[in-house]
Amino acid sequence: MALIVHKYGGTSMGSTERIASVAKRVTKWVRAGHKVVVVPSAMKGETNRLLGLAHELAPAHPGCDYDRELDMLASTGEQVSVGLLSIALQAEGTPAISYAGWQLPIRTSSAYTKARIEGIENKKVLAGLAAGKVVIVTGFQGMDANGHITTLGRGGSDTSAVAIAAALKADECLIFTDVDGIYTSDPRVVPEARRLSTISFEEMMEMASLGSKVLQLRSVELAGKYKVRLRVLSSFTPWDIDIDTEDKSGTLITYEEDEKMEHALVSGIAFTRDETKISVIGVPDRPGIAWQILGAVADINVEVDMIIQNVSRDGKTDFSFTVQQNDFERTLELLKNDIAPKIGAAGVIGDPQICKVSIVGMGMRSHVGVAAKMFHVLSAENINIRMISTSEIKTSVVIDEKYMELAVRVLHRAFHLDQPGTPPMA
Amino acid sequence: MALIVHKYGGTSMGSTERIASVAKRVTKWVRAGHKVVVVPSAMKGETNRLLGLAHELAPAHPGCDYDRELDMLASTGEQVSVGLLSIALQAEGTPAISYAGWQLPIRTSSAYTKARIEGIENKKVLAGLAAGKVVIVTGFQGMDANGHITTLGRGGSDTSAVAIAAALKADECLIFTDVDGIYTSDPRVVPEARRLSTISFEEMMEMASLGSKVLQLRSVELAGKYKVRLRVLSSFTPWDIDIDTEDKSGTLITYEEDEKMEHALVSGIAFTRDETKISVIGVPDRPGIAWQILGAVADINVEVDMIIQNVSRDGKTDFSFTVQQNDFERTLELLKNDIAPKIGAAGVIGDPQICKVSIVGMGMRSHVGVAAKMFHVLSAENINIRMISTSEIKTSVVIDEKYMELAVRVLHRAFHLDQPGTPPMA
Repeated sequence: MALIVHKYGGTSMGSTERIASVAKRVTKWVRAGHKVVVVPSAMKGETNRLLGLAHELAPAHPGCDYDRELDMLASTGEQVSVGLLSIALQAEGTPAISYAGWQLPIRTSSAYTKARIEGIENKKVLAGLAAGKVVIVTGFQGMDANGHITTLGRGGSDTSAVAIAAALKADECLIFTDVDGIYTSDPRVVPEARRLSTISFEEMMEMASLGSKVLQLRSVELAGKYKVRLRVLSSFTPWDIDIDTEDKSGTLITYEEDEKMEHALVSGIAFTRDETKISVIGVPDRPGIAWQILGAVADINVEVDMIIQNVSRDGKTDFSFTVQQNDFERTLELLKNDIAPKIGAAGVIGDPQICKVSIVGMGMRSHVGVAAKMFHVLSAENINIRMISTSEIKTSVVIDEKYMELAVRVLHRAFHLDQPGTPPMA
Repeated sequence: MALIVHKYGGTSMGSTERIASVAKRVTKWVRAGHKVVVVPSAMKGETNRLLGLAHELAPAHPGCDYDRELDMLASTGEQVSVGLLSIALQAEGTPAISYAGWQLPIRTSSAYTKARIEGIENKKVLAGLAAGKVVIVTGFQGMDANGHITTLGRGGSDTSAVAIAAALKADECLIFTDVDGIYTSDPRVVPEARRLSTISFEEMMEMASLGSKVLQLRSVELAGKYKVRLRVLSSFTPWDIDIDTEDKSGTLITYEEDEKMEHALVSGIAFTRDETKISVIGVPDRPGIAWQILGAVADINVEVDMIIQNVSRDGKTDFSFTVQQNDFERTLELLKNDIAPKIGAAGVIGDPQICKVSIVGMGMRSHVGVAAKMFHVLSAENINIRMISTSEIKTSVVIDEKYMELAVRVLHRAFHLDQPGTPPMA
């Protein structure tokens, strides 16, 4: 008998039929002798519907109290889901009880629309489980120290599920979604992409942050920190699939550093269109410049991804970084109007027509020349590289957006990702 | 400067356009120097949509934990409304903050789907008002002593608004709805029905309980208890109507016993189809029988309206009462299977094809013969009376459902309700 956390995404909760199927699947786990906590997302489309209503009322952001209300609004989507799932389980004869995040509570920071979980009180969950019930907890949300509802940002339900699994020391956290695992690349772009049966935590971190979109980055981070056994699998397999088969399907995220498995050189090709590039040029190169630029950007709550500072020339340097598409305009404005004049920069240039393509693999730690091969493959296709950044297990390049699909496909082939096993270095 | 509570019904909150209009109306009151607390209902249709989803998942009532989940589900409708209205107000430049019932908290009993308000903590509301904000509080819901979400039952937002007005000692509670006040009868049935500019608290109590459907009974009861100045008015007048005109529109509910106004003999004709009759016949007439029957009915949370016990004959009596349509089947079942055998009754007869018609008026207190006139008018139309019950200010009859419209129209005419002023007794 194990304690298992199930997380179901919006598509899996997309209709009463789908919810009934989730209830049957959870019931199967309960009948097999497991204790189950379920964290469902809002029904597909619901969060967008709610935020759409808000946008109709306030096309512009009307003030600093606005985000608090967005969270009041958006958090209802998951509350509807937990109520419905509890009813569906009870209809199956499976005792169940639902809780909103604030009822446990799940304590978070006060950063509305992008709060962070600070702690989970698990008493009510344990009491529910001890009473033989499935306990259902709203994903995506919590309560700050002043009793205000907060949400964790898009995909936050993954983080909720992992945080709950960590708080309960659950044996496993199953993330049921609309894909059956983590792939070597996006099958819509690379038809020959393959599902990985395991992926290391570090690789998953890089894949998630680079747009694989299967799991929210923060949830993987959290799972790594608390060593939560995390598995991504499909909620579209028949619910009555044999429970051992189900438990071994999907992609398992592994943490064991000392695992003797042979790591693939490159495990996947990640990419994202949701990046834009901003360059501050002709900046006087003195200590504190990076902080003056990026501190100001952080102050308006914009997350920066790649950061590159070129070598100084004549006491001047160019400073480039990438931000997400929907932060582009206000970041550009801030830099042009406030920061550039203050630090004496020559100018600010923004380019939204870029994308980022990355190769990710644990094997890169012990093999040289992987990055070089990537650059070679791209140059052979005449794709110009605009920015490069590297870490121990990934190499990312920024290229013109129009080349994205081509770059991903040729890299997938060059690193033999269409074939199982660890290919030799070409 | 006054402290005013505004309550807006589901139709008034029915779309983003309507919500924007509510925001403009509230803003007008704020700009006129008033402090305003707003209690909105869920958007029209939303509560039904949510409960419909629950019903798709569990066509039958799956267990005792079911009602708790219905409340988790249904309470989200109002939470969406407060978030949206706050955003709409902020877009108007009017500072606003929303609270769910549990956040104040509004403390209630634990009777899910029909909880009662037990207390309201008004600190956060006062703080919001002191900060110059419109404070928006979810109607229809609260939190029980164990931190579970509860709802107050259909129309519960009226009660929430009045309870908040009482807790704040507000100067006035304006109930904005889709009709412009209380009428002498339902204009859909009686075209010549007139709007009353004032109605006494006692009359309103009788009108509400008899199906005038404009205000929830409990809200009127509560308003009477705490002497909340209550006004029913339309949210469909243009929002920019002059504020004094608006404040004098609709129907004011009066409490002052010593008011010198001449009370109309009959103020209105109320009626409801939502009643069914149940008779327990041939009951041994001994002490405790009424309690054995009605206690059991109360235990399954069914509210009983009219109760009639006939004179005993041969030590046996007949016991009749009316319950709402949706409680009919289970009440009948309970009596047939459990109660009748236990108390030695000869049988149980149910009749769902009935209706109740009532004449209501403060003037009945000091005039005799009003009930007699009612019976005369009905008999002149060959309408058979099945049950009669009277109070100081109303007389109700149960008749066959098919005669309802006819009865209401002839009574409306007979008591001259189509003409303003107090008509002489005919």
